Amino acid sequence: MSEDNGFYDRVKQAHVVPLWRVPGTDSPEPDPIEVPYVWHWNELIPLIEEAAEVVDLGTDSDRRALNATNPGRAWGTTQTMIAGYQLVMPGESAPAHRHTPAAIRLMLSGSGQTVVEGEPVTMERGDLVLTPAWTWHDHRNDGDVPMVWLDGLDVPFIKHLHAQFYEDFEGKQLQPTPLADSASVERFGQGLVPRGLAHDRPHSPLTKYPIGTTVDSLERLRESMGDPEHGVSIDYVNPLTGGPVMPTMACAMTLLPAGRTGERTRHTSSTIFCPVRGDGYSIIGGERFDWSERDFFVVPTWTWYEHHACDGSDVLLFEMSDRPVYEAFDIYREEHGA
Amino acid sequence: MSEDNGFYDRVKQAHVVPLWRVPGTDSPEPDPIEVPYVWHWNELIPLIEEAAEVVDLGTDSDRRALNATNPGRAWGTTQTMIAGYQLVMPGESAPAHRHTPAAIRLMLSGSGQTVVEGEPVTMERGDLVLTPAWTWHDHRNDGDVPMVWLDGLDVPFIKHLHAQFYEDFEGKQLQPTPLADSASVERFGQGLVPRGLAHDRPHSPLTKYPIGTTVDSLERLRESMGDPEHGVSIDYVNPLTGGPVMPTMACAMTLLPAGRTGERTRHTSSTIFCPVRGDGYSIIGGERFDWSERDFFVVPTWTWYEHHACDGSDVLLFEMSDRPVYEAFDIYREEHGA
Amino acid sequence: MSEDNGFYDRVKQAHVVPLWRVPGTDSPEPDPIEVPYVWHWNELIPLIEEAAEVVDLGTDSDRRALNATNPGRAWGTTQTMIAGYQLVMPGESAPAHRHTPAAIRLMLSGSGQTVVEGEPVTMERGDLVLTPAWTWHDHRNDGDVPMVWLDGLDVPFIKHLHAQFYEDFEGKQLQPTPLADSASVERFGQGLVPRGLAHDRPHSPLTKYPIGTTVDSLERLRESMGDPEHGVSIDYVNPLTGGPVMPTMACAMTLLPAGRTGERTRHTSSTIFCPVRGDGYSIIGGERFDWSERDFFVVPTWTWYEHHACDGSDVLLFEMSDRPVYEAFDIYREEHGA
Amino acid sequence: MSEDNGFYDRVKQAHVVPLWRVPGTDSPEPDPIEVPYVWHWNELIPLIEEAAEVVDLGTDSDRRALNATNPGRAWGTTQTMIAGYQLVMPGESAPAHRHTPAAIRLMLSGSGQTVVEGEPVTMERGDLVLTPAWTWHDHRNDGDVPMVWLDGLDVPFIKHLHAQFYEDFEGKQLQPTPLADSASVERFGQGLVPRGLAHDRPHSPLTKYPIGTTVDSLERLRESMGDPEHGVSIDYVNPLTGGPVMPTMACAMTLLPAGRTGERTRHTSSTIFCPVRGDGYSIIGGERFDWSERDFFVVPTWTWYEHHACDGSDVLLFEMSDRPVYEAFDIYREEHGA
Repeated sequence: MSEDNGFYDRVKQAHVVPLWRVPGTDSPEPDPIEVPYVWHWNELIPLIEEAAEVVDLGTDSDRRALNATNPGRAWGTTQTMIAGYQLVMPGESAPAHRHTPAAIRLMLSGSGQTVVEGEPVTMERGDLVLTPAWTWHDHRNDGDVPMVWLDGLDVPFIKHLHAQFYEDFEGKQLQPTPLADSASVERFGQGLVPRGLAHDRPHSPLTKYPIGTTVDSLERLRESMGDPEHGVSIDYVNPLTGGPVMPTMACAMTLLPAGRTGERTRHTSSTIFCPVRGDGYSIIGGERFDWSERDFFVVPTWTWYEHHACDGSDVLLFEMSDRPVYEAFDIYREEHGA
Repeated sequence: MSEDNGFYDRVKQAHVVPLWRVPGTDSPEPDPIEVPYVWHWNELIPLIEEAAEVVDLGTDSDRRALNATNPGRAWGTTQTMIAGYQLVMPGESAPAHRHTPAAIRLMLSGSGQTVVEGEPVTMERGDLVLTPAWTWHDHRNDGDVPMVWLDGLDVPFIKHLHAQFYEDFEGKQLQPTPLADSASVERFGQGLVPRGLAHDRPHSPLTKYPIGTTVDSLERLRESMGDPEHGVSIDYVNPLTGGPVMPTMACAMTLLPAGRTGERTRHTSSTIFCPVRGDGYSIIGGERFDWSERDFFVVPTWTWYEHHACDGSDVLLFEMSDRPVYEAFDIYREEHGA
Repeated sequence: MSEDNGFYDRVKQAHVVPLWRVPGTDSPEPDPIEVPYVWHWNELIPLIEEAAEVVDLGTDSDRRALNATNPGRAWGTTQTMIAGYQLVMPGESAPAHRHTPAAIRLMLSGSGQTVVEGEPVTMERGDLVLTPAWTWHDHRNDGDVPMVWLDGLDVPFIKHLHAQFYEDFEGKQLQPTPLADSASVERFGQGLVPRGLAHDRPHSPLTKYPIGTTVDSLERLRESMGDPEHGVSIDYVNPLTGGPVMPTMACAMTLLPAGRTGERTRHTSSTIFCPVRGDGYSIIGGERFDWSERDFFVVPTWTWYEHHACDGSDVLLFEMSDRPVYEAFDIYREEHGA
Repeated sequence: MSEDNGFYDRVKQAHVVPLWRVPGTDSPEPDPIEVPYVWHWNELIPLIEEAAEVVDLGTDSDRRALNATNPGRAWGTTQTMIAGYQLVMPGESAPAHRHTPAAIRLMLSGSGQTVVEGEPVTMERGDLVLTPAWTWHDHRNDGDVPMVWLDGLDVPFIKHLHAQFYEDFEGKQLQPTPLADSASVERFGQGLVPRGLAHDRPHSPLTKYPIGTTVDSLERLRESMGDPEHGVSIDYVNPLTGGPVMPTMACAMTLLPAGRTGERTRHTSSTIFCPVRGDGYSIIGGERFDWSERDFFVVPTWTWYEHHACDGSDVLLFEMSDRPVYEAFDIYREEHGA
């Protein structure tokens, strides 16, 4: 390579960069900056309860949420998703708004309601509730214990694309609720579709996937498959397409029996896991991470991992991932085994 | 037009036909040979009970069914479908076989089981059960009353295409039943899809659509829509596609409140209706046809019709149609109103 | 089986048929009534020229066509298609109309124009021209020799479904031609799609597939594949979907080098072949059928066949089939080899 | 809001961030960091020629390219794409490799060859050549003048997803070329698809879209549409789907007649434009940007813009955009007019 005689300075001033000076253009496979990490319920709950004193819901902020920042990143739990806990105290409510990022809610403590496009949805521990892109949604706690759930949103992906739009509901109030509780489950959740109530959005028409149905389904599956080595899994699907619940994110639940180990795998998509029930640990990128009920943890892109259930009790392991994004462009890859 | 000098004879001998001698090539719209007609439960049940004496199930025939022949046709209820009653007496069974025509079963009397690809399905009055194309199926009556259901098959369509294949189960016996009763409903009927149990066939993975779910769904829909003038309808769908239950046939159920009249309409597809509950009459092609619970009747292609529910009770009106065939080729047309 | 005591008479009067008396319900595979048959150019051309004297185009008939009737059928070349020759004499024209049956035109002699939805398309020998379902079309011979082409229409299929609609162009005249000759080829035939000229119909936006392009493509394919044993084939496709040119019919061309034999095969779809160039014979259902340039012949459903090219010259063998109908319902089956 | 008593410090240490401290979560619409900018041919060509002295192709670098860095970003021309000029001197070649980012090549000066998966493709000025994701490709200049083209790659998008894989061709050499020049155009570019040469990748099977075809198509379109006010545009499409040439990027060409102004518009996708012929200027975000032949410029997300052609000559304006990414998730929005 010859002397540059100021070449690189002139290049920089011209707002171009020489390809041969861009690091990583010939890296053979993904080397993500994100790291595996566990956020523990026991550590974060005191903090978010403290937040209830620091921040007045509706006055200081419309939402009281602590979002996990991957230690390898400036912001975001993975390159596409943020996860975190959200808290609504008894008597509080979070006013209605809508935004292009889509959100997954996995109920973890207490009970309450999320209202989505006029449909009130009662949330009990383990329920999966969707507030898809550009749907009006608010949250309400009319009970007498705090409600806490796990949030999962595709904000880093939507922000990267500069596709965020946001709108407050008129008057920053709660929205009206003309529909019956969990009406969407009755309407679209049984292999039946009502005429005259078309659903032409790309997300699932189901707002709620109740935990009881999920657990029953897993238990029966486990029995019918002869209690398979690595446990059993179900995918939450859009009943009008058989595809993922959101265009950008997929959800699943695995039942890993006590003492068992899940399959070792890695893939280009990134994943956030939350054990709804049971304790265990995961080997991620060769390192052990212990977790307990209601913790959540992240597995970065292309990183080998496997899960272990402790001897005491079966584990119900919820996961949300950005796999649909990779599949949309034929860039999803996965490997199994050793 | 000149003298033909034997032209038409020579043409015929050459196995060609002059286009201008083919009748109907310029008919402006469909003029079906089929006619509207009602087959009455009260008239046919004695006949099929008599058939139980004439034909010994398993010896004389593998199935005891009386299929409706449209009075305008040599064979077939419509140009694409046959419908009829099928009877299995207590203690009897119909051995397993499979065929490329697909079948719809709407249970009308007694109870019993249909087994589809190893899955036993208990059938109670009003349940919709599918035995899709090329699936092993048998029928069993272990109870003490006769079981009768409505059959609907796409035989005239498949036969027209010369696409019928048929196979007896080995030994012409009943098939084994490794699966739990109605396992498919648990597996695919809740917005959840089990991993490792792929369903890559073009029909619904649900073998059964229980009547209870259907009625609940209709009642709630009626309430939520403010009891609309023409009643409410649901489509039975494939929960992996949102499309019809079979590639060739669609099913639906309408709740028409007592004293109400459905919308007047016509379409290129042909339809077979069966009132599961309630009495009424239909105006089809300008003529009145009275029907009672468990009768079935046919509306030919492009024929105006509307249904009326008697004052006494709400009507649950089941329908099966060949509409997916028309939609597959963009030749479906419908009109509403006067 | 017991005495019937008039059972079968009563059954017949009730407009039902006992399933066990319906012939063919358990036939293991298709046994079509259609037979293989060749219609020879040399025999039919004198007949259709005679038709030009018998029938005055525009006065006695809007089209002068002789359609092949399969010797095994009352009407139709196969269960889904009719094929035949159509003749327009110098100075004649066939007025514009449209109908739900779709039509394929393979030019065989002379030259002239077909106009489709305002687009005039010059037809030379070997060109494939489409007049899809419900498109206005007329035919014109402004030259000084007769024009003859092979017609292929899905009339038996559409008629079976009672889905025929028909309309004469206003005044039964020729339509205006605002577009340039073969404008669709320029617009959609190059991997380029004009903005503002949407094509939302289910058929190909291309009205014409010129023979020169087809032959060039086959010759290059033959060369690049090292002159394969059974020749080379191309499918004519819809450049907006990669699928067949029409929802109900597919077209293809095979180059079978002199002295070669095509692969032995059978399938559920039915096929009509027309050698555009070259002579040969086919073994169909075990029987030999000789054919020459511009003859056409039919292979029924599920019948084994193979083609042979004579030693003298390469064969260009055009085919049209109803395969898309079978694929739409997952009832297409094919077998190869011995 | 109360005193925090060290709350925010503890939150930070716990690797979470309070949602109410994340800037921009309620921004009503996109406010991209990218800015409009023009990179001028006359300024960059001397620089890249200087690069030919600084960097020896094949020794110092496998590619000699200067990629545009948006002045609002640390790296990348937009949030999803990089664009830049690439130079291969006479007698030089760039060895074969493949990577998951996909690349668009618009030839701007000289001539030469790009080889893609064994297919050599001669490139002349204005030709669009594709080297899609994970296809082996190399570049060769066997002529006697330098070849320069515009590169467009989806590297920022693929990198954001950590989905980059990269592989050198064995021995870092040129690949063999068993296929004829531009074989893909002959094979898939005419509405014909060869049997036995399946293409099951998500990108266009066409490697090249020659400029001659594009210009002819635009000129005819302009004539047929009566020379419309805002010019005419064509989209380059995948002839097997009618969709964009790549899953992540779309290409188009606009013919804007001399003195004319294109429509004013904005959209969520980002776009890079390159005038292949003619001079003009664009109003982007209210500011005027002048450009000449072979410059390229960027319009960020959700920024109003319109193009103007100078009086002297018609403009051919090439564009590449990430619109397919937005459409895949139903987050594409566009507005027109004032």
